[in-house]
Amino acid sequence: MTVTLADLRQASRIEAEPPYTPHIGVLVAMMYYARLTTLQAVGDLNTKELDTVPSGFSNSVGMLLAHIAAVDRLYQRLSFQGRGVDAQEGESYAGAFTLGKVGKRVQGVPLERLLTDLEAARADTLVGLARRDDAWLATDLQVQMPGFADLNHHWAWFHVMEDELSHRGQIRLLRKTIEAQSSVG
Amino acid sequence: MTVTLADLRQASRIEAEPPYTPHIGVLVAMMYYARLTTLQAVGDLNTKELDTVPSGFSNSVGMLLAHIAAVDRLYQRLSFQGRGVDAQEGESYAGAFTLGKVGKRVQGVPLERLLTDLEAARADTLVGLARRDDAWLATDLQVQMPGFADLNHHWAWFHVMEDELSHRGQIRLLRKTIEAQSSVG
Repeated sequence: MTVTLADLRQASRIEAEPPYTPHIGVLVAMMYYARLTTLQAVGDLNTKELDTVPSGFSNSVGMLLAHIAAVDRLYQRLSFQGRGVDAQEGESYAGAFTLGKVGKRVQGVPLERLLTDLEAARADTLVGLARRDDAWLATDLQVQMPGFADLNHHWAWFHVMEDELSHRGQIRLLRKTIEAQSSVG
Repeated sequence: MTVTLADLRQASRIEAEPPYTPHIGVLVAMMYYARLTTLQAVGDLNTKELDTVPSGFSNSVGMLLAHIAAVDRLYQRLSFQGRGVDAQEGESYAGAFTLGKVGKRVQGVPLERLLTDLEAARADTLVGLARRDDAWLATDLQVQMPGFADLNHHWAWFHVMEDELSHRGQIRLLRKTIEAQSSVG
């Protein structure tokens, strides 16, 4: 499924919808729109393009997509479960979460699998948010993060979205560079 | 004023505060946090660094900062005044709004002036939002934008923020590249 600019322009509303409470619903609408823009930015890049790290860049589009999914999964632990990742989870998500600084880099994974993983992670987030309400959203996380002041759940899920949007901006740049290089080569 | 990562970690809450109504207040808190991350990303780049367009990129950090301010000013017209920009405004903001595709590119403008302009544009946005309420936020814009479905005000101001976050991601990449080049050169 490719998302076009025209699709984005038809989706330009922020409205809370059931089953979510008003503030959670607004956040879900924002996360949904942000995801559409990520899908639009990625287009239908093939695996080689997803793996490309152009000169001057330190990440590939594939790495960033895996990161976005991993951030959803990390914040499910922090916000819904009140804990950090355990050793096994840490190992499987470390590469994606740290953008390859620790653990394995994402390489050779086709777009379809990256998108399925993004969707699966988000689906779990939405189930968790649908079970909660605006009073919970305003409260603080049960985990302490070293160096951080008290984080509330509203910030946590906003942050998941704002991190995705920031990487979407980077994906747009990466894709432009990759396409310019392949039209030259 | 330089914003550090430690500052961001002390500002990790989303809460509506007076004088804003609840949904507008949440949006303002998100816009405020997004702006802090932009300031953190820019650091204290000098004018030469702000003007640099590294190979593989098409914009400078200075151009992106001017763009972020211009987007605020455009959406003030669209959302608060129910009109597009007039000819004179169009001329003065075109370069920044279109990232130099139409009109003048931003060049030779020191960081202080770019930040003053960002702050002035945002101050007008906040005055406009403080005068309005959540019922208004949910309603549709009074201007039609060709190719777009009905946009509501909530989307409009979310979009101002999400566009800034996307460019902040790009500024982070640009700054890394600029600093790597100057440590080599």
